Amino acid sequence: MHRQHAPSHRFAVRVYYEDTDAAGVVYYANYLKFCERARTEWLRALGFEQQKLREERALVFVVRTVEAEYLKSGVLDDALTVESSIAEIGRSKLVFAQTVMRGSERLFDCRVGVVCVDWNKRKPASVPPDIRALMAAHPDTHTESHR
Amino acid sequence: MHRQHAPSHRFAVRVYYEDTDAAGVVYYANYLKFCERARTEWLRALGFEQQKLREERALVFVVRTVEAEYLKSGVLDDALTVESSIAEIGRSKLVFAQTVMRGSERLFDCRVGVVCVDWNKRKPASVPPDIRALMAAHPDTHTESHR
Amino acid sequence: MHRQHAPSHRFAVRVYYEDTDAAGVVYYANYLKFCERARTEWLRALGFEQQKLREERALVFVVRTVEAEYLKSGVLDDALTVESSIAEIGRSKLVFAQTVMRGSERLFDCRVGVVCVDWNKRKPASVPPDIRALMAAHPDTHTESHR
Amino acid sequence: MHRQHAPSHRFAVRVYYEDTDAAGVVYYANYLKFCERARTEWLRALGFEQQKLREERALVFVVRTVEAEYLKSGVLDDALTVESSIAEIGRSKLVFAQTVMRGSERLFDCRVGVVCVDWNKRKPASVPPDIRALMAAHPDTHTESHR
Repeated sequence: MHRQHAPSHRFAVRVYYEDTDAAGVVYYANYLKFCERARTEWLRALGFEQQKLREERALVFVVRTVEAEYLKSGVLDDALTVESSIAEIGRSKLVFAQTVMRGSERLFDCRVGVVCVDWNKRKPASVPPDIRALMAAHPDTHTESHR
Repeated sequence: MHRQHAPSHRFAVRVYYEDTDAAGVVYYANYLKFCERARTEWLRALGFEQQKLREERALVFVVRTVEAEYLKSGVLDDALTVESSIAEIGRSKLVFAQTVMRGSERLFDCRVGVVCVDWNKRKPASVPPDIRALMAAHPDTHTESHR
Repeated sequence: MHRQHAPSHRFAVRVYYEDTDAAGVVYYANYLKFCERARTEWLRALGFEQQKLREERALVFVVRTVEAEYLKSGVLDDALTVESSIAEIGRSKLVFAQTVMRGSERLFDCRVGVVCVDWNKRKPASVPPDIRALMAAHPDTHTESHR
Repeated sequence: MHRQHAPSHRFAVRVYYEDTDAAGVVYYANYLKFCERARTEWLRALGFEQQKLREERALVFVVRTVEAEYLKSGVLDDALTVESSIAEIGRSKLVFAQTVMRGSERLFDCRVGVVCVDWNKRKPASVPPDIRALMAAHPDTHTESHR
């Protein structure tokens, strides 16, 4: 799952008690929360708010697939960074490649497949051209399949 | 906050990793999740599902106040019981008295004030007479104020 | 990711408000909570508690990989079932195949790779023979690789 | 529960899907997460990390009481601010007054009683003089009882 390019987006996450569990580390499902925050902030940085996308364009991004690898454990008080890139862009599907770093240590790697859904019809919709153009503009974006 | 009467409803909760934190105990906000599950199951036991209440009668129960006391810490694998009673019933407001027990040990005590809200008008609504009647039927329900 | 056999373990999960999000469905990370509860309950049903495994044998099960597919959305008040099987057993690694069902509808499919770790040395340890024997006893367990 | 003074500490919180529920608003227990993050960041801003306090001084802050009032609902994408002050300082107990604001709107008010605990003896310990001095230095800190 290693990525060669610079990430397109970086997002800082601090580890609080709520994120940890009795094994003393970040609970495994919570890395998905960190990654979702990062995707949301990336969209926001590009000018899109999910609440507005739903209200104004009836569009929702829905997760369809996750492939994740847990490499090292995050702990309380860690200052983490979520690095995000687009690995694939299809008509209605985006695949994000995301990594949670602690400094130069790689803690967590994932690929998250997200589908753009028409909120009223509950069916897949095309990724809006403006979002697609902005995300594709990032240098490490590649549209070919990843395997 | 001690309650004299037998609880009106008992609900079993198991403590999983997701509920604990790096201090090795149940994270403080999660007792509110346990209590919400118990209130929901009590309503369900009386014949009411929250999803249906919203869809069919446009009614939602919204928490307005919480007073909570943390007495002992729950830990991983604990088998807990949430004991629930009604402390007060007003026109649109219910106050639940809830306790989280581990066997005979009292871990957590709370009073949760819940208001019945008209989902369309976003305004307080009367607690439906059928719910009120069922809850008031419980022997330890008292309608006088608790302070 | 389809599984042919009867699951080795079934675990009931109810969907509460805490599990849902503003899109009206179960939040995507929470299916991993449901699956972790099911793995824990399966271990418990076989006679093992995670807290005791850590205290008495210094063993912890740590998630290393997750592959997940979101097929349909769970909603508030859903009565779900997590079906769990062992897909692979290695020396120190177990791969669980887990599915979240709503009646006969398949909502969520995952494979979760778990490594048995020596809590003191923080290194992989062999899956204890007693746990291995009990899990392997289940009819649908297969030890060959799944791809 | 209204506070007259300027808060001693402000902390920004963004509302993500993980924080919301199927009623379309921030789930009630999650305000306690926001407030715990804010207390942690305040301590950190004063030079204290909870992980280090536990490792180096065997001190943990444990919540004993919560009194909370839900005034308005936060929704997805909200940019919130947690305002925190010290309402009381006792020998081993601190009471925080915390408010979650959305711009000038007050969403949530709470008082959180926290006890300083000796992690080894599992008994209350004095609030370290250096922490006490720093917190008491804030202009709105008052040591008299709040009722």
